[in-house]
Amino acid sequence: MTAPFVDRLTALVEARASQIVLGLDPDPAQLWPAAVEQAPSDGSAAQRAAGAVRAHCAALIDAAGPACVAVKPQLACFERLGADGWAALAATIAYARERGLLVIADAKRGDISVSAAAYAQALVGSTPTPFGEVAGLGADAFTANPLLGIDALEPIIAGARAAGAGVFVLVRTSNPGAADVEDLVLAGDDNDDGGGGAATVWERLAAIVAQLGSSSPSNVSGLSDVGAVVGATAPEHVARMRELMPNAPFLLPGIGAQGGRVDDLAPAFAPGRAAGLVSASRSIACAHESTGAAPAEAARAEAERLREAAWSLA
Amino acid sequence: MTAPFVDRLTALVEARASQIVLGLDPDPAQLWPAAVEQAPSDGSAAQRAAGAVRAHCAALIDAAGPACVAVKPQLACFERLGADGWAALAATIAYARERGLLVIADAKRGDISVSAAAYAQALVGSTPTPFGEVAGLGADAFTANPLLGIDALEPIIAGARAAGAGVFVLVRTSNPGAADVEDLVLAGDDNDDGGGGAATVWERLAAIVAQLGSSSPSNVSGLSDVGAVVGATAPEHVARMRELMPNAPFLLPGIGAQGGRVDDLAPAFAPGRAAGLVSASRSIACAHESTGAAPAEAARAEAERLREAAWSLA
Repeated sequence: MTAPFVDRLTALVEARASQIVLGLDPDPAQLWPAAVEQAPSDGSAAQRAAGAVRAHCAALIDAAGPACVAVKPQLACFERLGADGWAALAATIAYARERGLLVIADAKRGDISVSAAAYAQALVGSTPTPFGEVAGLGADAFTANPLLGIDALEPIIAGARAAGAGVFVLVRTSNPGAADVEDLVLAGDDNDDGGGGAATVWERLAAIVAQLGSSSPSNVSGLSDVGAVVGATAPEHVARMRELMPNAPFLLPGIGAQGGRVDDLAPAFAPGRAAGLVSASRSIACAHESTGAAPAEAARAEAERLREAAWSLA
Repeated sequence: MTAPFVDRLTALVEARASQIVLGLDPDPAQLWPAAVEQAPSDGSAAQRAAGAVRAHCAALIDAAGPACVAVKPQLACFERLGADGWAALAATIAYARERGLLVIADAKRGDISVSAAAYAQALVGSTPTPFGEVAGLGADAFTANPLLGIDALEPIIAGARAAGAGVFVLVRTSNPGAADVEDLVLAGDDNDDGGGGAATVWERLAAIVAQLGSSSPSNVSGLSDVGAVVGATAPEHVARMRELMPNAPFLLPGIGAQGGRVDDLAPAFAPGRAAGLVSASRSIACAHESTGAAPAEAARAEAERLREAAWSLA
């Protein structure tokens, strides 16, 4: 029996002294040059590009992975290369696991009933077929979109729990457009959760995350298996988030390229270091563009810099 | 140059006298028996199951397709079979197009900036790589999740427009959990769009759909290229939806298995028949379970029954 995601996470955070999640957002037009050279010399454009993407992700994992606790592949970046891209995604996930890293599939999925369950099968579970069970991607956790409500999240969370996996629900994202929907203020009748009150859509989403996480299977870490994606570009929200979701692990993107600063995040770490995961993608993969060093060298240095900065806060 | 999605849709709705969208939600454990027999006799479980899924979808398209205007593959159902499943999805889309049907990829995707653009590349566009352009799935339209706001939808819509494709944004879904977030009532300051007012989250989402659709490239149909997913289980909302989004095509799931009734939908059709697409999945694919007829026969009859019922309302 696999240990619950939050226990595996907590142990690995301590073992590696890191809370850094390495985002993998490969753009086939902006891969590290050495990866492009490793692409197969024949095959379709999709096959060759997928080979280059796979080599790029492996090189990034080799360089920055030792300073990180998990990778976070963004699924669209692979899907756009079709079945070959999906195969590269599966290979990248397997490679990250071989290197001792956890995998958080950045899928932002959301759907209802059997479709929601099918996403959990695809990402962390498996699917019964007349020809035997078919394994999914084998991620340790994935991101989910809560717009469709609790009954749409439940099958996703049930599927994740059955696999000992975790779910990170979008609560307040790091883009300016978060103001359009997530930040809307609720009216009186909908603005009371019986406790501190839920004043905005994102606070309501946070209450849903806390509610769904309250039935987490027992674990050593004390963390909930339903986490939250909390944009690090809105640091003033992090303390309120923690108040509403006392046991949820936070996935904090928005560092570096999106403008967030790692030292705004301290409140996230209150329940323990594993409760505040700092995600960075372009700031690591593209570090060489500002430093002038070789890509792998620059990525390694930037991941280590982030690791140390986050660790010193917690 | 491809004609805009809404013009292709409008022409096909008239030519086929149909507003029915055939949902393709293949569950490998519940495929039509004849499709399971058509699976390859060797290969991995994933390869064999993907072959059976592909045969099932082709048989469903052969049976019910002539009464329909489009198919709507639900992506998770294919993703759970990995790269083989993604290849079956691509083949199913190609087959539907060969049969003269439009394809609406039911992806419910949402992400920010370059990740949002990557979803459009994967579903309706193409991706530049050092090895040449890689085509995406070639769908005619896809569904998107608006939780992340306008700046997250913009790259998706831009990518769709560049491909002459459409986007259907989730506005109010057909599950009971829609009450948890979509139906929340907004406070005064956020409850005014300068016009009729936006009282709930879903009304705000509708206003966003109308705003984004107002910049649709010119087309013959007069419809917006930004449509809305409107759950048919809440028929009392359809008239208000139409008021808020006068030119948006509506994709109306929730017929049959989810409890909606086709004759509640008449207000959707005000801007024209193509503005109200009626989606049905299990009620067609599983019609044989209640009628006792052969699966293809029952699917054909149920699709034709739905076609006629919707057409008679518009």
